[in-house]
Amino acid sequence: MLTRDTTHTLTDQLVARFAERIRSRLLPAGTRLPSVRACAVQQGVSPHTVVAAYDVLQAQGLIESRRQRGFYVRDYVEKSVKATANKAQDAIKNKTLKDAVSLSLPAASARINATSLIRGMMHKATHPQPGAGMLPADWLQNQFLQSALRKVVGLEELRTMSWGYGVPMGDEMLRGLLADRLKTLGLPVIADQVMTTVGATQGLDIVSRTLLKAGDAVMVEEPGWSVEFARLAALGMQVLPVPRGADGPDLATMRRYCETHAPKLYVSVSVLHNPTSYSLRPASAHHILQLAKEFGFYVVEDDTYSHIAPEHATRLSVLDGLRRTIYISGFAKILAPNWRVGYMAAPPDMVDRMLDTKLLSTLTSPAIMERAMALCIENGQLRRHIERVRNRLVQARKHSVQLAQQAGCQFVTEPAGMFGWVDTGMDTEVLAQRMLDENYLIAPGTLFYASRQPSTLMRINYACTQDATFWHTYQRVRAEFP
Amino acid sequence: MLTRDTTHTLTDQLVARFAERIRSRLLPAGTRLPSVRACAVQQGVSPHTVVAAYDVLQAQGLIESRRQRGFYVRDYVEKSVKATANKAQDAIKNKTLKDAVSLSLPAASARINATSLIRGMMHKATHPQPGAGMLPADWLQNQFLQSALRKVVGLEELRTMSWGYGVPMGDEMLRGLLADRLKTLGLPVIADQVMTTVGATQGLDIVSRTLLKAGDAVMVEEPGWSVEFARLAALGMQVLPVPRGADGPDLATMRRYCETHAPKLYVSVSVLHNPTSYSLRPASAHHILQLAKEFGFYVVEDDTYSHIAPEHATRLSVLDGLRRTIYISGFAKILAPNWRVGYMAAPPDMVDRMLDTKLLSTLTSPAIMERAMALCIENGQLRRHIERVRNRLVQARKHSVQLAQQAGCQFVTEPAGMFGWVDTGMDTEVLAQRMLDENYLIAPGTLFYASRQPSTLMRINYACTQDATFWHTYQRVRAEFP
Repeated sequence: MLTRDTTHTLTDQLVARFAERIRSRLLPAGTRLPSVRACAVQQGVSPHTVVAAYDVLQAQGLIESRRQRGFYVRDYVEKSVKATANKAQDAIKNKTLKDAVSLSLPAASARINATSLIRGMMHKATHPQPGAGMLPADWLQNQFLQSALRKVVGLEELRTMSWGYGVPMGDEMLRGLLADRLKTLGLPVIADQVMTTVGATQGLDIVSRTLLKAGDAVMVEEPGWSVEFARLAALGMQVLPVPRGADGPDLATMRRYCETHAPKLYVSVSVLHNPTSYSLRPASAHHILQLAKEFGFYVVEDDTYSHIAPEHATRLSVLDGLRRTIYISGFAKILAPNWRVGYMAAPPDMVDRMLDTKLLSTLTSPAIMERAMALCIENGQLRRHIERVRNRLVQARKHSVQLAQQAGCQFVTEPAGMFGWVDTGMDTEVLAQRMLDENYLIAPGTLFYASRQPSTLMRINYACTQDATFWHTYQRVRAEFP
Repeated sequence: MLTRDTTHTLTDQLVARFAERIRSRLLPAGTRLPSVRACAVQQGVSPHTVVAAYDVLQAQGLIESRRQRGFYVRDYVEKSVKATANKAQDAIKNKTLKDAVSLSLPAASARINATSLIRGMMHKATHPQPGAGMLPADWLQNQFLQSALRKVVGLEELRTMSWGYGVPMGDEMLRGLLADRLKTLGLPVIADQVMTTVGATQGLDIVSRTLLKAGDAVMVEEPGWSVEFARLAALGMQVLPVPRGADGPDLATMRRYCETHAPKLYVSVSVLHNPTSYSLRPASAHHILQLAKEFGFYVVEDDTYSHIAPEHATRLSVLDGLRRTIYISGFAKILAPNWRVGYMAAPPDMVDRMLDTKLLSTLTSPAIMERAMALCIENGQLRRHIERVRNRLVQARKHSVQLAQQAGCQFVTEPAGMFGWVDTGMDTEVLAQRMLDENYLIAPGTLFYASRQPSTLMRINYACTQDATFWHTYQRVRAEFP
């Protein structure tokens, strides 16, 4: 809160607060600031103080005034983003652009939102944040990771794991264990098809760089994980959002895209989709693969939430037998996110090309982290840890759903997995700004749309919304916007 | 050697030998196999055996026969490479292409050579390889890395270093120490300008992805590090090779490129350049920066060999004060290559964009490796280790130069640093193939040319060419080609 007993004026404090949020991108470029009057009420200061603060922010180049429309956060990468978008449009100018959403400008501007979200995700917070994309540290902490690391550090192999570049495909022990795990999921792989990556993030990046060239069209799910939209836009791709429903993606839209845009790739979080927590139904998976065959596109299956998903969930790569699908996963959602241990399994004829891209992007990946993870898998500690986390999540979900409903939120999708997708009945971008004043970071729905359309939805993390205090605050703030 | 006393025929053995080399890309696509007669002589078998082996390899799709010209290794990524090249050519079709070398087709095909070189680099060998790009493991090994790791694993901070995604810019302790080091080199940086990367490789990748878009022209040094050519070609860039001389790059060529191709970037290994070991002269650095200002391109300074280079060496970033230069370095050449600890320092207004690209490509980087490296710097162990390696390298260089000269090699550049650039008087790609039969991996000159032009030069690693046995073998093989 702003205070009157410091050496800084209220204006200075207000400027500092907004400036910090703009620089850390908690207020992304293009965000409209509250009106002078609303801000004055929210902050408990006079309108004059707010006007003075907005003047200073404008002088600092952080915000701009738009005639009759108020104050907006300025975008310092605006130019480069527009250049990319124009380029992408040039590249596709010869095609009929029937679908307005496929213009890459909105997708390109999603970059800003996405990095804002990631930065927010990594913001050091005193308490778990409702908008967080990961489980709280105390859920993931354990003693066995440290033991595994100690063991690796003491290994004779430490030498081969440090004083050479290492095996380009990744630690062989881990790859063997991962191949075994994928086999139990029903994937027909051998270790030679499994490559480690610097987190699942690098896996998704490698696939895009290997299979696509700038200007190519890619189908993504909407709502969806906006970092994926942002990466594709940054690589110069044309992002085609496909509505994701309870059964799976909207197949009619997919077919239309296939007929008009000849997409090269479809990126899917098939199981426990982010943010809806939907899981793909078998019939939908079957139809997607038929389309993929008919129109010759590839499918990337991002199985990031694999460890908290049911083993029997339908996976595209399993149905397909890893012919035109690439499977990607990692451990960040269940264990040691900073270790950046991810992996991918690709069709045999594609593995070498993926490896080339890995070599060009990071050469190899740190084997010490990979071997320590392998030890945790081998000794069964990871399996037991997963069971504990799953059980805890069931309880947390039950509790959070109850609190959210009591606070007047509607669940628009069936509660499952880690994320709830709830309707607040108001523009959640406005809500998110206001909640920042209360030190809560929420994930507004707009972040999950490539077109950045306004939304009354928000994504909540069940593990981080079990505290009644948050929901009381939410209700109080929500009541300010009748 | 092929043997007559096994259960496999000589033909089978010959097929297996070639197939393994083709698959591991020690024989890259496009390589011409020895003539039937030459192969028969080299392997000590009948021409009939060779013909049979080549037939099998052809049936397996690994090689192809070209009318009147012999047998060549097939390129399974040929199509995609050509597509990329065609696209790049389309993108630049509106410009006058006076310079044949700037066509991206040769650059794109450099990809294959480059990955072949890297794979070779990581090939498990029983003895140090003359063509290796790194110091032998026993030069880099030490006890203090293990102690540092043990300390980090025991730290209370391990928790914050594992159970969150970590600080996107990288471990703060390491970044502070790196900023201090850069200041002693003369770079005016603060820790906020220093970002860690997954090896220097990721740093180079991030810069290209942030500053360039597909079709952009980039100046590189030739001869030069072909993985850089390959990365740029894979990203769809137009690669413009600038001859690198003893003083620095050929400034007249640079100016001509600037006038005709408007390059966006110049990538330079300014100090102890690979493969020539040249170091940039101050006047040349000054002129490069003048050109950069006049034509508005950026400069990436790849200071990979920093730790074995003289402290007083001329660096572009230092002269420029990090205004239109980006400085990149890492530890792989001096300590723990597989840890993948690299870093970059960028102008203040560019840091945020570089960070965004890092987030989109690997999210964060493993802090455990970074903190352990920081401890080695802080306690002075790294500095003492560097002194030992430098002294050892001085001795090795003296010894290797002597042996190379006795074996009839001419040094075309003044011996310095880690690599010697020597003339053998014969096509070193042919020599490299033949040396593989003797279990020696050499680095033929052609690998360092974007246009893959034939070369009589080869790069030797001083640390790995102190063994007289290698040079005797070299002389014997060399004598086969009068």
